[in-house]
Amino acid sequence: MHSVRFTTETSSNGVLERDFTVGDIPGVLWSPASGSEQAPLVLMGHGGGQHKKTPALMARAHDAATTWGFTVVAIDAPGHGDRPRTAEDEQARADLRQAMAAGDTEHVESITARYGAAVAQRAVPEWQATLDALQHLPEIGTEAPIGYGGGITLGTGIGIPLTAIEPRITAAIFGGGFVVHEALIEAARRITVPVQFLLPWDDEHVDRQSALALFDAFASTEKTLHANPGDHRNIRWVGIDNEFMARHLGRVSTSPA
Amino acid sequence: MHSVRFTTETSSNGVLERDFTVGDIPGVLWSPASGSEQAPLVLMGHGGGQHKKTPALMARAHDAATTWGFTVVAIDAPGHGDRPRTAEDEQARADLRQAMAAGDTEHVESITARYGAAVAQRAVPEWQATLDALQHLPEIGTEAPIGYGGGITLGTGIGIPLTAIEPRITAAIFGGGFVVHEALIEAARRITVPVQFLLPWDDEHVDRQSALALFDAFASTEKTLHANPGDHRNIRWVGIDNEFMARHLGRVSTSPA
Repeated sequence: MHSVRFTTETSSNGVLERDFTVGDIPGVLWSPASGSEQAPLVLMGHGGGQHKKTPALMARAHDAATTWGFTVVAIDAPGHGDRPRTAEDEQARADLRQAMAAGDTEHVESITARYGAAVAQRAVPEWQATLDALQHLPEIGTEAPIGYGGGITLGTGIGIPLTAIEPRITAAIFGGGFVVHEALIEAARRITVPVQFLLPWDDEHVDRQSALALFDAFASTEKTLHANPGDHRNIRWVGIDNEFMARHLGRVSTSPA
Repeated sequence: MHSVRFTTETSSNGVLERDFTVGDIPGVLWSPASGSEQAPLVLMGHGGGQHKKTPALMARAHDAATTWGFTVVAIDAPGHGDRPRTAEDEQARADLRQAMAAGDTEHVESITARYGAAVAQRAVPEWQATLDALQHLPEIGTEAPIGYGGGITLGTGIGIPLTAIEPRITAAIFGGGFVVHEALIEAARRITVPVQFLLPWDDEHVDRQSALALFDAFASTEKTLHANPGDHRNIRWVGIDNEFMARHLGRVSTSPA
């Protein structure tokens, strides 16, 4: 088993940011600069073509650390960010560029679905290895509650199969913007932990009905769908339940909001 | 124009409750016992077959008065509560009982849709007359922001056509549990104020797709759908945006939650 190797460490606005590797997986850990003993741990996934330190992801991580005292971890998905690209990664990216340039929406969707599923298959064991290693850090340990903090698109494509097989995850935020394939529906049917599902209502790249079918598939007795106008690139989330993760990871009263 | 005639007045748990009539419309006004000068006014609709003082409605009204300092008003819909029933009301109730006893779901739905639309047509001008009269009370006046606080089923069947033609309403909460007819979709298309829409995800009496089509129809740039498992008689609302009305009626910061 690989352990966590910290590389660089910086601090800003009350948040400690530590880059690390677990084997050849590059990751980053954000935590309150004031200390984070056994703080809940939130796994954050990035979108397709993105990486672990996009401005949006960092803003969410900082907010989670400063508002709730969470420790947040993100890793680059296979073929993304600082990771080397395999021939399959390069081929998928080239195909995607070509289909986009040709305005061939159906082809874009089929490539995204197929490639996303392949990336997810590689990413799930990497998240598990990262979790194993992080739990050996004294400031995290095995007692800290763990949530999957989502990210729409690829972050959901990876998060759903991960949450389906990973009993350490006890609450999850997923979202739309991802082409739903049958394996994803099957994985959703195995999920029983509380789920928050964020659906961009007007996503031109993703069939709304398939996203609703995905929400329908979760076996969780507690699941909430939030939909707002906009597509996944251009959406202002309003009125969503910002306490969802804190409530389920034990940082606020557990009475219903 | 009819004015507000107060009949009885009681006070409990910090909330003043005043029964009133406007012409032959019986209503009730809840307000903070500590005073409510120009407080925002929230109109609450009751469900089909219910009345203005169901325990659930009273609980929501007390919460709105004590948490946000709102004044809340509810009136009995035509043929409901303390209102006399016309031959049409009696016939619809008899038909409904018969269809329910026979387990004829389709007939239940068609009666509910037809009768609900007829009740709404009578209820909308009654709400407007009630508003006219309430705005002559010095403690309400014409400056208080007004929201429609919903109630699912009949409360939404009435609230949507009311909000569509009533410019004094500047934010609205609606919900599922109502058989959606074409006139309701048409009315929703004319609504542009912020809307919160509560959808029981597993309502056996109402087609889910028609409720989603209703949400889709609102012309509002700000609209949020919240769905939770359960049907409209048996649902635990979790993670919904409890500050929605307060945000839009000016009682909390207007920054997105």
